[in-house]
Amino acid sequence: MSGIRAVVYGVGAMNSIIAGMLLDKGVEIVGAIARSPEKVGKDLGDLTGLGRELGVTVSDDAAAVFQQTRPDIAVIAVNSYLTDAVEQLRICAEHGVNAVTLSEEMLYPWDTSPELAAELDTLAKSTGATLTGTGFQDTFWVNMVALLMGTAHRIDTVRGKASWNVDDFGPELATAQQVGRTAAEFDEWVKGAQRPPTFGRNVLDALVADTGLTVRSISTLTRPDIAATAMRSEALGIDLAPGDVVGFTDIDRIETQEGPVFVFEMSGRVYGPGEGDINEWAVEGEPNLFLSNGTVPTQATTCTQIVNRIPDVIAAPPGIVTVDKLPRLRYRAGF
Amino acid sequence: MSGIRAVVYGVGAMNSIIAGMLLDKGVEIVGAIARSPEKVGKDLGDLTGLGRELGVTVSDDAAAVFQQTRPDIAVIAVNSYLTDAVEQLRICAEHGVNAVTLSEEMLYPWDTSPELAAELDTLAKSTGATLTGTGFQDTFWVNMVALLMGTAHRIDTVRGKASWNVDDFGPELATAQQVGRTAAEFDEWVKGAQRPPTFGRNVLDALVADTGLTVRSISTLTRPDIAATAMRSEALGIDLAPGDVVGFTDIDRIETQEGPVFVFEMSGRVYGPGEGDINEWAVEGEPNLFLSNGTVPTQATTCTQIVNRIPDVIAAPPGIVTVDKLPRLRYRAGF
Repeated sequence: MSGIRAVVYGVGAMNSIIAGMLLDKGVEIVGAIARSPEKVGKDLGDLTGLGRELGVTVSDDAAAVFQQTRPDIAVIAVNSYLTDAVEQLRICAEHGVNAVTLSEEMLYPWDTSPELAAELDTLAKSTGATLTGTGFQDTFWVNMVALLMGTAHRIDTVRGKASWNVDDFGPELATAQQVGRTAAEFDEWVKGAQRPPTFGRNVLDALVADTGLTVRSISTLTRPDIAATAMRSEALGIDLAPGDVVGFTDIDRIETQEGPVFVFEMSGRVYGPGEGDINEWAVEGEPNLFLSNGTVPTQATTCTQIVNRIPDVIAAPPGIVTVDKLPRLRYRAGF
Repeated sequence: MSGIRAVVYGVGAMNSIIAGMLLDKGVEIVGAIARSPEKVGKDLGDLTGLGRELGVTVSDDAAAVFQQTRPDIAVIAVNSYLTDAVEQLRICAEHGVNAVTLSEEMLYPWDTSPELAAELDTLAKSTGATLTGTGFQDTFWVNMVALLMGTAHRIDTVRGKASWNVDDFGPELATAQQVGRTAAEFDEWVKGAQRPPTFGRNVLDALVADTGLTVRSISTLTRPDIAATAMRSEALGIDLAPGDVVGFTDIDRIETQEGPVFVFEMSGRVYGPGEGDINEWAVEGEPNLFLSNGTVPTQATTCTQIVNRIPDVIAAPPGIVTVDKLPRLRYRAGF
């Protein structure tokens, strides 16, 4: 036994998988937090399909859970954007509780939400808590790509191409990914001023920051992915007709003052039969470099990485510590 | 300018490429060491084909060069095995000079040459020098693979498959790789008791050590690669007839007490037309994971990594510091 004591924050699709992985690694789950009245008061084991009770009752009072359990880590799988995720991270920081979160923006929040990031960083430093955004992006979009870049003598362009299946991540993300909209609705949405920065932007921000280069310009192009035939979104439980939106592709681009250009094309959509996630990166320069992960298990490695990062985050200095600053992820049979 | 001052140790095929890369990164080359009478007394710029003199005269007196120049780093590209490389590393350590070397065994020497490694480690610690074996293996066979492993929940088997073109690395390595032997000569050689451990062994040693697992058994199978048609070894300047040995493939295997098995199939041979280096790794377990670098530029990234590791090695604590313990390699336009 490691002695690591964790609180699961959010009891949805992802933390249901994560809870089992935590137990496999020898982590003790000492608390669970959720908002939904259907979950509060139930046993975490029953809710997560573990096939047995854990003796952990889901609570909607995060402060009380933290005060009673004083965990080593909170494992947050709730919101993608920092404006939403800040509520959970703030309460962790207030209680001096280290946190790992799947919030995509927390991967590298300094450029897209500088005020919120600074507020959380200051608060966490004052209580000794470390806050880290991890998940699939940690290795596959940041650290493995930065490592490949580290084998270059000169970089001209870094080009990434990735896809993920919207249906793997539950209804919130499918809705955010515009599944089921008409093309006209999509165009209307994409033109709106309220759209937050893409998650690819945070990936490129982390990659550029890792090189010490200076950002000159940032741009994002977004195109809808359209169903060619009848499809179904399992996450939303709806049928999609030809012409319906099944997700979208963001093409983020950062140019640097020193020359190197970073481009990331990320497609999140409902897949047709036989489609799988890809992750491919090319570094053009001296020499030309390439990386592919074949058909990559995005959902599983989202969960494995938030779990496997826990020892690194507990050991890290207080404040927001982004994954590019953590030690290289390594395999442990147990913690 | 970085202020990093380097001595180039060995003036052969690899350090000729490396010298240009050092200058591109802003490193000052303050000395050069070689044994060959045809090189000693000549200017490094002339010898390395830089097209200009550098004002650095090649010397065969390493101690004098180190005493006169007091460099921040020695860049060693001379020998593959530690029994040979120890001479250069010892003199660096004696003079308190940090060193990066392409010695394959120095990638992770603790299990294959424990006494020599311990001697060098103690000596380096006494003078404040850091000694690191790097090169192609650093990222592509150790750190990128260990990173991929870090995204697994459970590992059953790690399988690597790599090839490199013997003709890219000069005549010493081509000779060591048995190019031009007959199959009978190869069989005789491979049966001999004098054969040192494979370089793949050092790679697997590093990967297993990174997981904290316990070695149960180690084995190596070696098969010759045979020319099917007439070929030519450019490194040796010889023609090869059908049936001649063009290199060989080592299949290293480490089983661990805890269960996970590590297998690495490394083929170093003279290529036929259209062949290119590959680097492919599969992690079987939960989930299954995969990594490929397409046609990988082995020679270029051998040179880039010894150069790009210099700031990490200068900053590292004294002693032998293997690449799995260094920070994740990163891209720098200049040092």
